[in-house]
Amino acid sequence: MSTKPQNVKGMRDLLPPAMMLRQHIMQTLRQVFERYGFEPLQTPTLEHAETLEGKLGDEERLIYRFEDHGGRRLAMRYDQTVPLARVVAQYQSQLQLPWRRYAMGPSYRGERTQRGRYREFYQADVDIVGSASPVADAEIIAVLTDALSALGFDNFVTLLSHRQILGGIARVSGLDEAAAGGVYRAIDKLDKIGSDGVRKELTASGVSDTACDQILHLVSLQGEPEAVLDALQSALQGDERALAAIANLRDIIAAADAMGVPRERYTVAPRLARGLSYYTGMVCEAVVESPPMGSLLGGGRYDDLIGLFADRSLPTVGIAFGLDRLHDVMEELGMGPQGAMADVFVTVFGADCRTSNLGVAHLLRQAGFNVEVALDANERLGKQFQTADRRGIRWAIVQGTNEIAAQQAIVRDLKNGDQHVFALDALADGLRALNTSTPEASA
Amino acid sequence: MSTKPQNVKGMRDLLPPAMMLRQHIMQTLRQVFERYGFEPLQTPTLEHAETLEGKLGDEERLIYRFEDHGGRRLAMRYDQTVPLARVVAQYQSQLQLPWRRYAMGPSYRGERTQRGRYREFYQADVDIVGSASPVADAEIIAVLTDALSALGFDNFVTLLSHRQILGGIARVSGLDEAAAGGVYRAIDKLDKIGSDGVRKELTASGVSDTACDQILHLVSLQGEPEAVLDALQSALQGDERALAAIANLRDIIAAADAMGVPRERYTVAPRLARGLSYYTGMVCEAVVESPPMGSLLGGGRYDDLIGLFADRSLPTVGIAFGLDRLHDVMEELGMGPQGAMADVFVTVFGADCRTSNLGVAHLLRQAGFNVEVALDANERLGKQFQTADRRGIRWAIVQGTNEIAAQQAIVRDLKNGDQHVFALDALADGLRALNTSTPEASA
Repeated sequence: MSTKPQNVKGMRDLLPPAMMLRQHIMQTLRQVFERYGFEPLQTPTLEHAETLEGKLGDEERLIYRFEDHGGRRLAMRYDQTVPLARVVAQYQSQLQLPWRRYAMGPSYRGERTQRGRYREFYQADVDIVGSASPVADAEIIAVLTDALSALGFDNFVTLLSHRQILGGIARVSGLDEAAAGGVYRAIDKLDKIGSDGVRKELTASGVSDTACDQILHLVSLQGEPEAVLDALQSALQGDERALAAIANLRDIIAAADAMGVPRERYTVAPRLARGLSYYTGMVCEAVVESPPMGSLLGGGRYDDLIGLFADRSLPTVGIAFGLDRLHDVMEELGMGPQGAMADVFVTVFGADCRTSNLGVAHLLRQAGFNVEVALDANERLGKQFQTADRRGIRWAIVQGTNEIAAQQAIVRDLKNGDQHVFALDALADGLRALNTSTPEASA
Repeated sequence: MSTKPQNVKGMRDLLPPAMMLRQHIMQTLRQVFERYGFEPLQTPTLEHAETLEGKLGDEERLIYRFEDHGGRRLAMRYDQTVPLARVVAQYQSQLQLPWRRYAMGPSYRGERTQRGRYREFYQADVDIVGSASPVADAEIIAVLTDALSALGFDNFVTLLSHRQILGGIARVSGLDEAAAGGVYRAIDKLDKIGSDGVRKELTASGVSDTACDQILHLVSLQGEPEAVLDALQSALQGDERALAAIANLRDIIAAADAMGVPRERYTVAPRLARGLSYYTGMVCEAVVESPPMGSLLGGGRYDDLIGLFADRSLPTVGIAFGLDRLHDVMEELGMGPQGAMADVFVTVFGADCRTSNLGVAHLLRQAGFNVEVALDANERLGKQFQTADRRGIRWAIVQGTNEIAAQQAIVRDLKNGDQHVFALDALADGLRALNTSTPEASA
């Protein structure tokens, strides 16, 4: 037994119950993305190594790299953003900007494995390439909101901010760009270490008590978007970049409201830091507050990366849904589809009845049911019921010689042994009625 | 321009029109598979190299292999069958046999690139693990037939045979096992080189003229399944393995008939060879005859591979849909969904109207339309129409100050410039009516 092969550490097998949840998530996201006109893109998981290199900083050592049979240096992609930049440059003539694209697939990083961190991980990315309009930012927030709602989350809030707000707070508190970096890193930990922890870090890095007070006051603001933005606007007077950021957020919020994003689903949160080196404008992050599951996903505007290979500026805004994270949270909360793949199990009543029994399976499939048939005609009926029950299938069909002669079939409720006889031409409707009249039966 | 990164040779980017077709194919297959109770499985694209090694023969040099950060020897999977064998061994206690599983994903082989051959290629595998029942073989044929029909193929035939029929033909023609191998390889080329070509090859390898005549006569049989099987049965008298194979095919065909597989969709074709070393029983291959597109996909029973790591016999039957091949054929035949991702394009009539315009987009999304909105409020309306038209979207919504005051919106048909005014609360229904009453508009 010890020599049996195993999956590679940090890369998951999704057995059917997990894969059914995964497909439900992907299908739900796809529908929402398409509702907004986003188009699907698929790129290979392998890229030329030099396409991926030089963009990940310290993390670059995590890339899986190797030489192929022709001596080319290949690498497994570590996200779907750099491949998007390549596609935008490579197919310029075929793509019409602004371009809404989504992509779902695996990426690879040789991380230290830990809970919730995988070396093969799946992401669903949505991005609007080639538009600096606040309507694009708002649309991303609307997509995020619709997607989480469609998945069944009803207690999440999206935190909104802008890269230049935290920058402005640092600047009006008298810090230079170098010191500001420390402020971002400290603020990023606010939810984890609390304001006392942040104060300690700021003080240690030489920030004065007064500056600390002001920073902590401003980054802790939260509430009605307009109230928070008004407070920030007064506090950041004179810092042109911050004021432009506030005006931009006002525009984004007006568009999000017009698109139907409910007010209770977002809040302005100046403390939001989110890898500031990458983002250039709006940043957002969806958080499940009750039960407290923390951050689900995030994103924002990043105007400098996508045009990299195209040698031109391509303002872009987008988010990435971490499918493993969503999956794990939904599993923990018992969300998503439950129950077996098949709705009905058709038993085989001995070799003589097999042809008729398979005919019943065909009839039910044509009526839209997912049907599993027994494969072994010699197996006792009781054993066949057991098989169906173990798979979580509630309804079994039995059709012996008498039923065949009478053009009938029996529907057996495996939960309680109740049996219902139907004429064959009424079987599908009868089963449908049973399935809806007994609420525990529906998925 | 010359320094711009490119995709890796032999690995395809699927831009939106292609990816929309790909998703249509995958979604259609998924529905058919689930209709028969098949459950989804996903395994990582990377495996430990030793799991994959020793099973591909000469082709093993095509495997992409490398060492990861911890010095483990990893390999990219070259099919989804060996990973299935691993999963069956690794999770024995969680899996209930017989197990119907499907899997869709990429595999990798460092092949010489040529038309229709990719180094990253996608397959959809369906297998029934742990049953030797002819009903399982029949179900695979039913799935194959339903799947191709659901994709829109209406001119395909599935060739059916059994590994031991060609074996029996070789044996009753007086050939030993060693010579039989040459016969299989020659027959495999029958459709390509014709019977004269096969005769030449057989003669060259020392097969007598009489034996050639008999072999060519028997492998060329085709027609009503019973007639072909009767003819084979007479010719192969005395060869127990061949007679058992014929009886097995009769059982499989009876079950396939009972499951509703139409007669015109399959034929018994003793010439079918299909990598005989791998298969142990029924073999099948679907061919599009008109227009002559050749083989679409195939499979059969292979009882020795899946139990490999589990150290027990696990009879298995299945097929693999080559998604790239299906895709290329459907693209060539103009099959699958046409048209844009968005049904409607909502224009923005200047900054003052933006809030109302975005509200209309929201209203249409809630009614189930896929809606793209214009992002630039300053763009001329004519330019916005052009954008929509270039994307292949037929309907544009216009709502200026007058329409906003009157709670109305205009639907413009971009094909001919016709405009229709609707009250907002009648807009969705009006658009739906327009879309169905003008046939060219529907996808």
